[in-house]
Amino acid sequence: MLILMEAEATRAQIDRVCDRVRELGYAPHEMPGAQRVAIGVTGNKGGIDPGHFKRLDGVHDAVAVSRPYKLVGREVNPEGTIVEVAGTRIGGGELTVMAGPCSVESRDQVLSTARHVRSLGATILRGGAFKPRTSPYDFQGLREEGLELLAEAREATGMPIITEVKDTETLPLVARYADILQVGARNMQNFTLLEAIGGLDKPVMLKRGMSASVKEWLMAAEYIVSRGNLNVVLCERGIRTFETATRNTLDLGIIPLLRGMTHLPIIVDPSHGTGVAAAVTPLARAATAVGVDGIMVEVHPEPAKALSDGPQALTFPMFETLMAEVSKVAGAIGQPVAQLSTPSKTPSTSAHDEARA
Amino acid sequence: MLILMEAEATRAQIDRVCDRVRELGYAPHEMPGAQRVAIGVTGNKGGIDPGHFKRLDGVHDAVAVSRPYKLVGREVNPEGTIVEVAGTRIGGGELTVMAGPCSVESRDQVLSTARHVRSLGATILRGGAFKPRTSPYDFQGLREEGLELLAEAREATGMPIITEVKDTETLPLVARYADILQVGARNMQNFTLLEAIGGLDKPVMLKRGMSASVKEWLMAAEYIVSRGNLNVVLCERGIRTFETATRNTLDLGIIPLLRGMTHLPIIVDPSHGTGVAAAVTPLARAATAVGVDGIMVEVHPEPAKALSDGPQALTFPMFETLMAEVSKVAGAIGQPVAQLSTPSKTPSTSAHDEARA
Amino acid sequence: MLILMEAEATRAQIDRVCDRVRELGYAPHEMPGAQRVAIGVTGNKGGIDPGHFKRLDGVHDAVAVSRPYKLVGREVNPEGTIVEVAGTRIGGGELTVMAGPCSVESRDQVLSTARHVRSLGATILRGGAFKPRTSPYDFQGLREEGLELLAEAREATGMPIITEVKDTETLPLVARYADILQVGARNMQNFTLLEAIGGLDKPVMLKRGMSASVKEWLMAAEYIVSRGNLNVVLCERGIRTFETATRNTLDLGIIPLLRGMTHLPIIVDPSHGTGVAAAVTPLARAATAVGVDGIMVEVHPEPAKALSDGPQALTFPMFETLMAEVSKVAGAIGQPVAQLSTPSKTPSTSAHDEARA
Amino acid sequence: MLILMEAEATRAQIDRVCDRVRELGYAPHEMPGAQRVAIGVTGNKGGIDPGHFKRLDGVHDAVAVSRPYKLVGREVNPEGTIVEVAGTRIGGGELTVMAGPCSVESRDQVLSTARHVRSLGATILRGGAFKPRTSPYDFQGLREEGLELLAEAREATGMPIITEVKDTETLPLVARYADILQVGARNMQNFTLLEAIGGLDKPVMLKRGMSASVKEWLMAAEYIVSRGNLNVVLCERGIRTFETATRNTLDLGIIPLLRGMTHLPIIVDPSHGTGVAAAVTPLARAATAVGVDGIMVEVHPEPAKALSDGPQALTFPMFETLMAEVSKVAGAIGQPVAQLSTPSKTPSTSAHDEARA
Repeated sequence: MLILMEAEATRAQIDRVCDRVRELGYAPHEMPGAQRVAIGVTGNKGGIDPGHFKRLDGVHDAVAVSRPYKLVGREVNPEGTIVEVAGTRIGGGELTVMAGPCSVESRDQVLSTARHVRSLGATILRGGAFKPRTSPYDFQGLREEGLELLAEAREATGMPIITEVKDTETLPLVARYADILQVGARNMQNFTLLEAIGGLDKPVMLKRGMSASVKEWLMAAEYIVSRGNLNVVLCERGIRTFETATRNTLDLGIIPLLRGMTHLPIIVDPSHGTGVAAAVTPLARAATAVGVDGIMVEVHPEPAKALSDGPQALTFPMFETLMAEVSKVAGAIGQPVAQLSTPSKTPSTSAHDEARA
Repeated sequence: MLILMEAEATRAQIDRVCDRVRELGYAPHEMPGAQRVAIGVTGNKGGIDPGHFKRLDGVHDAVAVSRPYKLVGREVNPEGTIVEVAGTRIGGGELTVMAGPCSVESRDQVLSTARHVRSLGATILRGGAFKPRTSPYDFQGLREEGLELLAEAREATGMPIITEVKDTETLPLVARYADILQVGARNMQNFTLLEAIGGLDKPVMLKRGMSASVKEWLMAAEYIVSRGNLNVVLCERGIRTFETATRNTLDLGIIPLLRGMTHLPIIVDPSHGTGVAAAVTPLARAATAVGVDGIMVEVHPEPAKALSDGPQALTFPMFETLMAEVSKVAGAIGQPVAQLSTPSKTPSTSAHDEARA
Repeated sequence: MLILMEAEATRAQIDRVCDRVRELGYAPHEMPGAQRVAIGVTGNKGGIDPGHFKRLDGVHDAVAVSRPYKLVGREVNPEGTIVEVAGTRIGGGELTVMAGPCSVESRDQVLSTARHVRSLGATILRGGAFKPRTSPYDFQGLREEGLELLAEAREATGMPIITEVKDTETLPLVARYADILQVGARNMQNFTLLEAIGGLDKPVMLKRGMSASVKEWLMAAEYIVSRGNLNVVLCERGIRTFETATRNTLDLGIIPLLRGMTHLPIIVDPSHGTGVAAAVTPLARAATAVGVDGIMVEVHPEPAKALSDGPQALTFPMFETLMAEVSKVAGAIGQPVAQLSTPSKTPSTSAHDEARA
Repeated sequence: MLILMEAEATRAQIDRVCDRVRELGYAPHEMPGAQRVAIGVTGNKGGIDPGHFKRLDGVHDAVAVSRPYKLVGREVNPEGTIVEVAGTRIGGGELTVMAGPCSVESRDQVLSTARHVRSLGATILRGGAFKPRTSPYDFQGLREEGLELLAEAREATGMPIITEVKDTETLPLVARYADILQVGARNMQNFTLLEAIGGLDKPVMLKRGMSASVKEWLMAAEYIVSRGNLNVVLCERGIRTFETATRNTLDLGIIPLLRGMTHLPIIVDPSHGTGVAAAVTPLARAATAVGVDGIMVEVHPEPAKALSDGPQALTFPMFETLMAEVSKVAGAIGQPVAQLSTPSKTPSTSAHDEARA
């Protein structure tokens, strides 16, 4: 923290600021300049709220110098964190492809989608069972039934599953099924949920809030990590701006900066990031090229009939194109597409599945 | 819902769209135009997701026509809702002033502030006991002790209290103390919390999310009202924009539109809306002049020592100025400042308080 | 400028930064702290580009301390500037009302509007003759004919006129007719135009750009003032945000801060600020209450037939309501509505006008 | 245009709307629905201003259906426009690399940079001679001397040059030197400048305004094209959002949509788009992967000494890395990096240059 005094600040004002610094348990360091005095503050762990000083007489401004986050900062793990998920991993130089429907809607829908994306190289299956929706009248997900269908798809394909957890009430239930918990953009600052997840030993993917600054996002991750759960993955999914031609504005420019700021793996979601199916594959290529640890996309056997997010879902052929193109770009930057260590079960459909199909 | 077909849409494509409308349980109404066909959709209750149609072949666009919210819409209660709170009311043509510290920090702080704001005409005491903070390392509130201090201040002054509830876990506890529950901007789309509050018979003030559109805000209110709790008050507290000179951009322009859209009372919070103490009184005047049901401001005996939001807290003399100026503006537009029906206890301080003072 | 070195910066790196400061003609002041060294930079007039230092080895950040603008800063004229316009003035504690049509469309339209707004107390007539339009196919204004009609309305009513100048080409022509030049939001950083206006001795109202920070806006004013034209008035007209319910988001929160930053008079335009006629009067009241030197609104005899900005134009009766309400609010905050020193000609319509009416 | 009537609109109101449509020279098409009547409007060329109808009694909303732009729309040239520049071309499936300093500062600086970027494959040299700067006290460019240095660099390397034109006053001068005129973000809606450029037969690159919607950007291009100059290239350079960690938010998500909307070539500028040198190469890779016709980056022999935009300039080695990586990504998506048809002069420096070096 650097406190900049007004040019005309009096000796008494400067002294009072130094006293206040001491009162708070820190050490003031007076640094006289030609036009004004600056006061450095040291002895703090973590950030100091500039609000403590801005209102004192004679203070021009108070500027935070040290970073407010501690455990998620790059310097804590310069190599970068690798999050282990059943049979695969996120981070460590490979590109993880997560794919699946926005919402789990039916057994056929989720199984056919899971098999399709698995056969093309996706290693993690996404699907929503508890859906936070803007309207109380919209489809809210199949709930536990949806989780069971996801588990069945995992069984059938060998892919671990990621699914959203929307509250602490359903956290134990969702955690029982999910390989990775997803915290949605609206819950990025649901601190009680973050703390509860922080107490689990389960990977979590934290989506950036719609209007969250990078600092706020990292502080949200710090909530989880500071409770002991180090398996946090960040997911950029677009921010809200004045531009309405796309559903959100995918902020790829932040990725290289984020890399320097944190050791956590980074995923990009071009489906929510654009909201337009035709834009998903180009942006998946772009996300790959900018350098991320994975991408997450929505795929649906029949997008026009999807119960949520139809306009942004890829058809099966579109996903095939995506995988082909993303693989080429990943290859060009020397990043292999991540594999499952468990053998894919896609070719051998189980009798159980056959019977119902 | 109006579905606009492409100019070159074929007969078969139009038929398929009409079939899809029927499949969803609605009625299609073909409306041939000179250049293109439009298809009206009727028979729906509440909004239809345009996503159902946007991906069908031959569809140019799908435009929502009816409003997605039902119970909070102006037409449901054209007179406007009045929310009754112990001893006072919000709505109905009066201007309610809510004031108090950002966080409850100590007995002296909250009691002296409560007495001060009460003596100048505030009718509802604000104060945070559970504080959602961006950093896990920041002061998180006095929790139940804070609630008890608020209750003591209520006892001492006769003012009902409003305090933030941040999760379902602490909802029963907070609801036991609070006269009005406050849902903060970060929780505006915490649907589980909204639903839980919807099941109570307790007034609630719902703050607008930092980047929530008006429609999303009203849908969040709809979550509460649709569960049976009609005592919802909206609070505009500034939105996030590119401008960083103020903490947020207070969106007063939305107020007249909101009036036409909903019957719920509307409060404006110029403290969070600007983040700068010197701007709070001018914006409180402006909010009053634009026409609202109340204002909420932060007041602190010694802002420079506040544990949260010091830069935006009013000192006692600043609050006195605010009340004088806001009263004049309210008078100019013919809106009386709301009174407490219970006699103010401020003049007669209890022996209990005297002893400790 | 304060340059913050990295905690691990070497002596050589610090020396190199100091050398660079001297190379640029400034003086470095080393200020050792407990964790890092800061280097104060003095000897500069106006702002220093932090870019000079941010890329040097060992530099953590470079923070501007002094304000980049000089002539428009509050301290240059703490009393506040009063801009004299033929027969009236902007600033100095009165509230100026500027009103008139968006575009000048016909003799009848502009004269009837001018007489109406004059009769109700407006002192400056607005009207666009050269219209910058988003589409090249939209109505671009009556050009010189429009200026002549404005001049005729001035003659008829005694009101000085404000009209937009959109380029240096038409500046001499527009300046011949206008009492106040208006620079639109799109031209706020048309520096060549600003410089040309800076060379004139003619009042100018500079609208804030759609996404201009306060600093950028003041720097744009500095372009004009630094060329010698001190008669600059600022106009807040709404900024672009994610919210689309209103055309723009009127940023009233910035007004009190702006007052502290600059001595220039400040006008608010609630017509562009909201884009919705029903919201204009409430926001005009709010702007008055927040404390400005004037408001500017669009009025049209028949908004549904307006060639531009119909949705936001006030009808004649709506403007009458606005004046009544704004006067009351202005009275409540002790600010009289500005008067014309020249006698109003409204009652005595000239024979010339009579003949055509 | 579709006009949606209120559910309770009367017959007379509907008739009056239809009359108004006819008055404006269009044809109304009444389309009765179950809940409300819609009125289609046909017979228009180009867009109709919805403002004509929104204020009429009984009108709920007026929705534009046809696109407002005509000449820049994709359907006008489905193959995509190729802009021919001396010795090279933009569009047509190749990736053009434009590189050079932000500002031309000295003969050595521009020549060494030009030779460096040419030797690595850039085909167009960028450099600013007339610099629009936020502050009137900042370096404004070397003006004509800068143009001469650019011309000398063109002579030395064979690369055509792109340089910014900031006003109509200097347009003839700049056009005499430049192979491509650049219109900066601040001038995107400087319609007089656009019209003047529209009258020339010279390629122009139109940067997106800081807060311009895609539609506004395309309409700005329409200003140029509608005057006869078809050689327009669009350049996405980042938009202004709440996020301040990067200078702007590079909007790559818009690129695939833009492709569908317009036939004009598209360039991305990751230097301004991020404002951080370390982010430029990753975003250049991403822009290449998303599918554009070229990229433009700032390169400086010694960024720490740059007179403008130092923090975002690439050093020579950084640009070498960029070219290597971008080439690989371009290869992966099957897009060759554009070449100069004129032989590069880099290896054989002229005696003229040698003498001065």
